[in-house]
Amino acid sequence: MEYMKTPFRGILNDVKGRIACYKQDWVAGIHSGFGILAPTTYIFFASALPVIAFGEQLSRDTDGSLSTVETLASTALCGIIHSILGGQPLLLLGVAEPTVIMYTYLYKFAKGRELLGQKLFLAWAGWVCVWTAVLLFLLAIFNACAIINRFTRLAGELFGMLIAVLFIQEAIKGMVSEFEVPKSEDPKLDKYQFHWLYTNGLLGIIFTFGLLYTALKSRRARAWWYGTGWFRSFIADYGVPLMVVAWTGLSFSTPSKVPSGVPRRLFSPLPWDSASLHHWTVIRDMGNVPPAYIFAAFIPALMIAGLYFFDHSVASQMAQQKEFNLKNPTAYHYDILLLGFMTLLCGLIGLPPSNGVLPQSPMHTKSLAVLKRQLIRRKMVASAKESIKQKASSSEIYGNMQAVFVEIDSIPTNAVIKELEDLKEAVMKEEDPKDTFDPEKHIDAYLPVRVNEQRVSNFLQSLLLAASVCAVPAIKLIPTSVLWGYFAYMAIDSLPGNQFWERMLLLFIAPGRRYKVLEGIHASFVESTPFKYIAIFTIFQFVYFLVCFGVTWIPIAGILFPLPFFILISIRQHILPKLFRPNHLRELDAAEYEEITGAPRLSVNFSFKERQAPVLGNVEGEMCDAEILDELTTSRGELKLRTVSFREENATQVSSNGAVQPE
Amino acid sequence: MEYMKTPFRGILNDVKGRIACYKQDWVAGIHSGFGILAPTTYIFFASALPVIAFGEQLSRDTDGSLSTVETLASTALCGIIHSILGGQPLLLLGVAEPTVIMYTYLYKFAKGRELLGQKLFLAWAGWVCVWTAVLLFLLAIFNACAIINRFTRLAGELFGMLIAVLFIQEAIKGMVSEFEVPKSEDPKLDKYQFHWLYTNGLLGIIFTFGLLYTALKSRRARAWWYGTGWFRSFIADYGVPLMVVAWTGLSFSTPSKVPSGVPRRLFSPLPWDSASLHHWTVIRDMGNVPPAYIFAAFIPALMIAGLYFFDHSVASQMAQQKEFNLKNPTAYHYDILLLGFMTLLCGLIGLPPSNGVLPQSPMHTKSLAVLKRQLIRRKMVASAKESIKQKASSSEIYGNMQAVFVEIDSIPTNAVIKELEDLKEAVMKEEDPKDTFDPEKHIDAYLPVRVNEQRVSNFLQSLLLAASVCAVPAIKLIPTSVLWGYFAYMAIDSLPGNQFWERMLLLFIAPGRRYKVLEGIHASFVESTPFKYIAIFTIFQFVYFLVCFGVTWIPIAGILFPLPFFILISIRQHILPKLFRPNHLRELDAAEYEEITGAPRLSVNFSFKERQAPVLGNVEGEMCDAEILDELTTSRGELKLRTVSFREENATQVSSNGAVQPE
Repeated sequence: MEYMKTPFRGILNDVKGRIACYKQDWVAGIHSGFGILAPTTYIFFASALPVIAFGEQLSRDTDGSLSTVETLASTALCGIIHSILGGQPLLLLGVAEPTVIMYTYLYKFAKGRELLGQKLFLAWAGWVCVWTAVLLFLLAIFNACAIINRFTRLAGELFGMLIAVLFIQEAIKGMVSEFEVPKSEDPKLDKYQFHWLYTNGLLGIIFTFGLLYTALKSRRARAWWYGTGWFRSFIADYGVPLMVVAWTGLSFSTPSKVPSGVPRRLFSPLPWDSASLHHWTVIRDMGNVPPAYIFAAFIPALMIAGLYFFDHSVASQMAQQKEFNLKNPTAYHYDILLLGFMTLLCGLIGLPPSNGVLPQSPMHTKSLAVLKRQLIRRKMVASAKESIKQKASSSEIYGNMQAVFVEIDSIPTNAVIKELEDLKEAVMKEEDPKDTFDPEKHIDAYLPVRVNEQRVSNFLQSLLLAASVCAVPAIKLIPTSVLWGYFAYMAIDSLPGNQFWERMLLLFIAPGRRYKVLEGIHASFVESTPFKYIAIFTIFQFVYFLVCFGVTWIPIAGILFPLPFFILISIRQHILPKLFRPNHLRELDAAEYEEITGAPRLSVNFSFKERQAPVLGNVEGEMCDAEILDELTTSRGELKLRTVSFREENATQVSSNGAVQPE
Repeated sequence: MEYMKTPFRGILNDVKGRIACYKQDWVAGIHSGFGILAPTTYIFFASALPVIAFGEQLSRDTDGSLSTVETLASTALCGIIHSILGGQPLLLLGVAEPTVIMYTYLYKFAKGRELLGQKLFLAWAGWVCVWTAVLLFLLAIFNACAIINRFTRLAGELFGMLIAVLFIQEAIKGMVSEFEVPKSEDPKLDKYQFHWLYTNGLLGIIFTFGLLYTALKSRRARAWWYGTGWFRSFIADYGVPLMVVAWTGLSFSTPSKVPSGVPRRLFSPLPWDSASLHHWTVIRDMGNVPPAYIFAAFIPALMIAGLYFFDHSVASQMAQQKEFNLKNPTAYHYDILLLGFMTLLCGLIGLPPSNGVLPQSPMHTKSLAVLKRQLIRRKMVASAKESIKQKASSSEIYGNMQAVFVEIDSIPTNAVIKELEDLKEAVMKEEDPKDTFDPEKHIDAYLPVRVNEQRVSNFLQSLLLAASVCAVPAIKLIPTSVLWGYFAYMAIDSLPGNQFWERMLLLFIAPGRRYKVLEGIHASFVESTPFKYIAIFTIFQFVYFLVCFGVTWIPIAGILFPLPFFILISIRQHILPKLFRPNHLRELDAAEYEEITGAPRLSVNFSFKERQAPVLGNVEGEMCDAEILDELTTSRGELKLRTVSFREENATQVSSNGAVQPE
């Protein structure tokens, strides 16, 4: 609790750090000119679609008290504020699933109390936001972010899995609902007669699976063999929104004899409808909330605050993974403070608050990253090899390489120096004769990614979101079944790279087949940890997951569903180390505070090497940075932690079509 | 025309050859006991499903004159006859797509003539069969099969592609028809009201794509990571029929309010209905066919005879590829003669005739094949390595290995001797010091597959088909839309391994991506032939394909659609060699009479080596023979011709996750 002794320290440091580069944040963005539009639009669609989907989910669960209009508005508003005043401008904000779930519980609770009811729901939620804001302020002031290194994969991936399962649940519930007459609708209507209901349901199935399948396919487009690199990248980046548009278009191809309303489409009031205007009365209504409930609001606030603190920090962390080589400082404490203010604001005008979102935030950083290495490394390897031929000493080798590096790299900042330090170490370390110095390997290992750090892309995409609030009439054309497909897509797309998921699969792989895992890209734990421990760890995690999922089903107490995660974090810290060997635990759930350095480095090295395939030349042309980065990052936007072990080398040698002759 | 001088020679040789092993054919089958049931049921389903599908297609195109009952009956009848009297018992017979197309043309023609009409259609078709039989007799007597080595990939794959496209066409036509009232049905019926028609159509889409997707997935089951080897093989072997059953079952889950005819199901009279009994009157009716038409029947007969001669021989050839190491002699001439008799028989009782079918025939051989090598090679490699350690001379090495081989291989027939010869050569050749002798490689290259050659499996599966004629009431439960999905499945499943298809894809691969082709398994022409020639050859083939496809659309003359193929065969033989360099032509369209021997050997070598992956041991356990053979054969049932070239070695070395360190 050291860090609690000096309140405000974190915030002040953050502010100092960011002010230094504030001007640069804008200048850099503006200088990059139109180039910034690509990542902007890419990120816009990536954040708009889920927000729309959540809006629809929310409007169903709150009988229309909140809808797509509100989720879009909140996301746009917070986005603009954060992009201007935020600490880490790479962090993206949005109304996320946890918020939707919480608000659903709040609504169910409020509806049940005659003193609140649907009328005072938003007012009461306002109070929840007030409490949440207060708690976030405290967390920021007392430097709580010092503990974010406590957030390990274990809890993070468990949470991710829960969200995925809730998405699937949403998709299934949605598809079923297509066969039913929505409550608060007149079952007399022609479109609700059995045969049209059934038709609507069948169309729903077709659209849901259609979108799911096409979206998943288009996501992989960058690796396609056909079409130009530009075309593939375009499909990979915009395929999912394109598919939503395509299926929406297709949904209008139903013959005219089918009554309107089949297939069912998004339900949302227009922003300029009276329905949307009551928001401005929320502050006034807050006075009418009985004091008892004002205090009761503290309990959900506690959960939401914890959730936001967790989510916001992790999203920010992911957007700033060290492999991205960001130059500007972090601002965890300050961003939490700002989040508090935004939550307060949203609460007062009756909007669901936004917080840092995954995987969009790391996607954002990725879309701004450039691999200088392609160019640099060739020259450096050349020089290194040259020096080696001349039997140069390590320090000479390093000298020559540095020469090349600095020569090419326009702006050698601290970051660069640091990288060169690492490189130097690596080269020096190699003095030990055991393994000879392999330039390829080491330079790959220590060569950086460059990210264009600025505020413009975030700002512009928030403006676009604001604009799309007015596009609601168009958005309402989307068939609901397409959204169910989109929920399923989000769920499935989030699984690969989630080690919890991959370990669960591993348990089901026939023992004789496990070598196939080693043949492919795989996390280091597969080799370094005995299967027995992997199994125990995974089963524990799975049981715990069932508990968390179970909690969401409890009518009122469901509001406590974030609690297990907070508990899990301390279980991880205090109990698990007693049950597992440290090295196994590190492999299975590497925590900052007990990280093995080697792994991630090697990983980058490994993944980069993999991309060297110079067959038939002109790989450079086709193998664009985006593609390399794609292969380096999981769906969660996290850079893969991979290691190349002796065993894997065997595996791959053998698996390589047997063409590799023993020399 | 040498071979024409000595009529009957071919037939007599065949008979002599087969009589010698006739008893053995039965004994071997019976000795293998229950073991024979697995391939039997496997092959039964593989041949039953298409026959059912073709039956439905035929009954639509001939207004019910012929249906599933007839196609099943014909297949069963001919199957039984061939399995008992046939020359090559591994060859499977069945009513195939070409027959269906021809009969459709015959029907359209007959229907149009008032002197024939639907009434005399089968009688006239009977005459066509008579002529066809006569022609087949002549072909057999004058040893026409001597020219089957003229049938190269070019024509074969073009024909396969045409069938695939016709299947897709059938699937699409079928799906569209689900939205329409079938002709000869009363549109007043409740189930033909718009909303039920539309529902039927939507269900059709769901079932069609559902079956297509699940069938394609289950087909790949053997390579799955999950489940026991037994389970995976089961799904891979029976997945498609299982899916047909599953979707049929699902089709009964429609709510009771949906009228009975929705979704639409197979239409077929029961074998004991009067509709099916008129067949016995066909012979009598044949007298009533006007002489003019009897002679006119010669033209379609010419086409069908050519088609059958081509199909039957190629199917038989595929079932006896040299990589299968069959011990018993071929019987092309005699089988054509027998085919003539069976065609005659079918014609007289008004059944559509059967002929040798692809890919079922090679599938049949494959299902009976066992890889003795797994066991043998380990011992031989051991002994070889041992000898090498002792600096033994090649001849000694060979001697020791032969010892092991003979010791293990129970019945060393001529085949075995031959293999040992090859092996000896290989070992001796290695005297040249350039590349050292690598036992692994050579033994893999020259070790045989053993096929359990017998008549029982073919006989039993024919009996099962006969039995399933009585199962028509059950078969009628299959929704038609499931069959459309099955047609699409057959089309898509037939493409991989079809080099015509693979070359067309190659044309669309972005140049910078071609290295990906080299990284994977690929045909040798990709490396050995300049892209320009590949392109020219492929475009020529494609244009020719369009012509062939166009012909099928011509109303009456469409009956001549096999003609282009016969022409193509002589184009290949006389014109193409003038346009392309011999070595390129060999690579693109290896013809028996100008085959490069090296390739196939190498291929087997290569493919086997590929399977050696001894990672985590116990590959043997999991990697069953069936799986190895699976990976060795294309969907067309043809053993892959692959070569490992220098360039590929690079490709794969690099592509192997970069784990291969430069030594």
